[in-house]
Amino acid sequence: MNADKLVLLSGIKPTGEIHIGNYFGAIKQFVELLNDDSHQGFVFIADYHALNFIQDAAEMKRLTRNLARTYIACGLDPERVVLFKQSDVSAHTELAWIFDTITTMPYLMRAHAFKDAEAKNKEIVVGTFNYPMLMAADILLYNASVVPVGQDQKQHIEYARDTAEKFNRIFGETFRLPEPHILLDVAVVPGIDGRKMSKSYENTIPLFASRDEITEAVMGIVTDSSGDRPENVYAIHRLIKTDEELASLYEEHKGKYKALKEALIEDLDTFIAPMRERFEALTTDAEIDEILHKGGALARERAEAKMDEVRRAIGVR
Amino acid sequence: MNADKLVLLSGIKPTGEIHIGNYFGAIKQFVELLNDDSHQGFVFIADYHALNFIQDAAEMKRLTRNLARTYIACGLDPERVVLFKQSDVSAHTELAWIFDTITTMPYLMRAHAFKDAEAKNKEIVVGTFNYPMLMAADILLYNASVVPVGQDQKQHIEYARDTAEKFNRIFGETFRLPEPHILLDVAVVPGIDGRKMSKSYENTIPLFASRDEITEAVMGIVTDSSGDRPENVYAIHRLIKTDEELASLYEEHKGKYKALKEALIEDLDTFIAPMRERFEALTTDAEIDEILHKGGALARERAEAKMDEVRRAIGVR
Repeated sequence: MNADKLVLLSGIKPTGEIHIGNYFGAIKQFVELLNDDSHQGFVFIADYHALNFIQDAAEMKRLTRNLARTYIACGLDPERVVLFKQSDVSAHTELAWIFDTITTMPYLMRAHAFKDAEAKNKEIVVGTFNYPMLMAADILLYNASVVPVGQDQKQHIEYARDTAEKFNRIFGETFRLPEPHILLDVAVVPGIDGRKMSKSYENTIPLFASRDEITEAVMGIVTDSSGDRPENVYAIHRLIKTDEELASLYEEHKGKYKALKEALIEDLDTFIAPMRERFEALTTDAEIDEILHKGGALARERAEAKMDEVRRAIGVR
Repeated sequence: MNADKLVLLSGIKPTGEIHIGNYFGAIKQFVELLNDDSHQGFVFIADYHALNFIQDAAEMKRLTRNLARTYIACGLDPERVVLFKQSDVSAHTELAWIFDTITTMPYLMRAHAFKDAEAKNKEIVVGTFNYPMLMAADILLYNASVVPVGQDQKQHIEYARDTAEKFNRIFGETFRLPEPHILLDVAVVPGIDGRKMSKSYENTIPLFASRDEITEAVMGIVTDSSGDRPENVYAIHRLIKTDEELASLYEEHKGKYKALKEALIEDLDTFIAPMRERFEALTTDAEIDEILHKGGALARERAEAKMDEVRRAIGVR
């Protein structure tokens, strides 16, 4: 960890199996950004946010470890980036409470996520309503200057900025205002049926697929016989090779769908193998836990230094 | 601290100057209950609750120390009772967040305090809305079995019980259900004008008054000349002496209001002096801070043991 650099911070949510659509759509550029030495990266697994919908201990543990393993397998370097669990740093929830005391209900009710949830169901949990405050704490605790978000998450940064400004106004200059770094919209990754790759369409290729799983998925790619080039095969092939690289291959095997699929299997396996190996190399939960544990200690040190300032500013220390 | 005993827990809010009305109305019986060896007492200064309305560091510090000093001067024994600041134990806010994730908005909106606040002002702060969850955490962290509350605060215990039950149902048996200990309604303490003693009526006798302040207050007691006994003098006198003790005095000085007031001054001074001396003996802020610091360490140890159970139950450890 480099203590002098500007901080780039991001939270990631525990989810289920990752497919190559997730990888090419978001994880790849995100990991590149995090590893970049021009900032000190902090990434936390947002387990206290996730507690709003994952209320099962075994599932929480499994998804958390799976997420850490996935990002490391995708290239996130835990020696350069501080990777930790939100729940390992109690300052997140403590600061969220402090923000609760300077934030009004109507302001928080204007949050998109709350309004969306309310439109669907009146029985929203308080954690869903209150989560922009936890998110503001997540960001402001680390003096994050850059926070990568999707276009639809810009409001989170606005809440963090508003809250920082309000706190600074009441209690004196304490927080740095973060800037959003809007992640570019990456082209849609096609699934094996040509539609967007998505778990709900059951058209995915798992990111850490074995050779057999790759074969099964690629053999299942839907093709029609109207042209020389099987477009659905080509669309996936293009994720890992350039048009130039593919030109001669598709010329050579014009109309031979099976051969082209076999080439794709080979290329996918070559591409996936190192990630799959990294994913599997982190075999024991103990290893993952140790990485998260170390990250937690680094994050806690940084967060506690900030909390010290905060506590003095509000007069509880 | 006795680790094996059942826990009696209470929170106290930082407020301004205390008068003998507060003492005889509540503090006296409360301190007796806390010191009682049949339970292990925990008392916290609810500074994170108070942050909803005290948003000034110097004032927060002053009121917090003043409150600790007051209770110790009134007899609270910090060797027997764990006296600490809520903000010194981050588990309070952490557990409050966890409760947020299993609590619905409509349920929390039914809280009396929220409805009262909403009736007055739409711009309620989130901390006022969310505080029953912090209070539930306050109580449940210590496995408190008894929580002394006024009749009007029974709902807090209900929220804590409901929340404990809900958590236990979702994540497995973790929390003990607390019982309210309703503090008896003590007879109204009269002020120097015969109305209820209250800061807003400016009819108080400060609890740690000097001899001069006592004299000034007692000389200002409103009397009429309709009877042999100055009722407003007698009403205050009765707080510190029994009717039997006072009978001969008031008989001897029948109609002599000045002499009776002088006797009251003497008796009040005799009564107040030891508390005033204790209050003043705790001269340095450092001494108070040290007591709170020690209490914080004991409370943290107990709270962290509970949080360990909680974290395992929800799967973040």
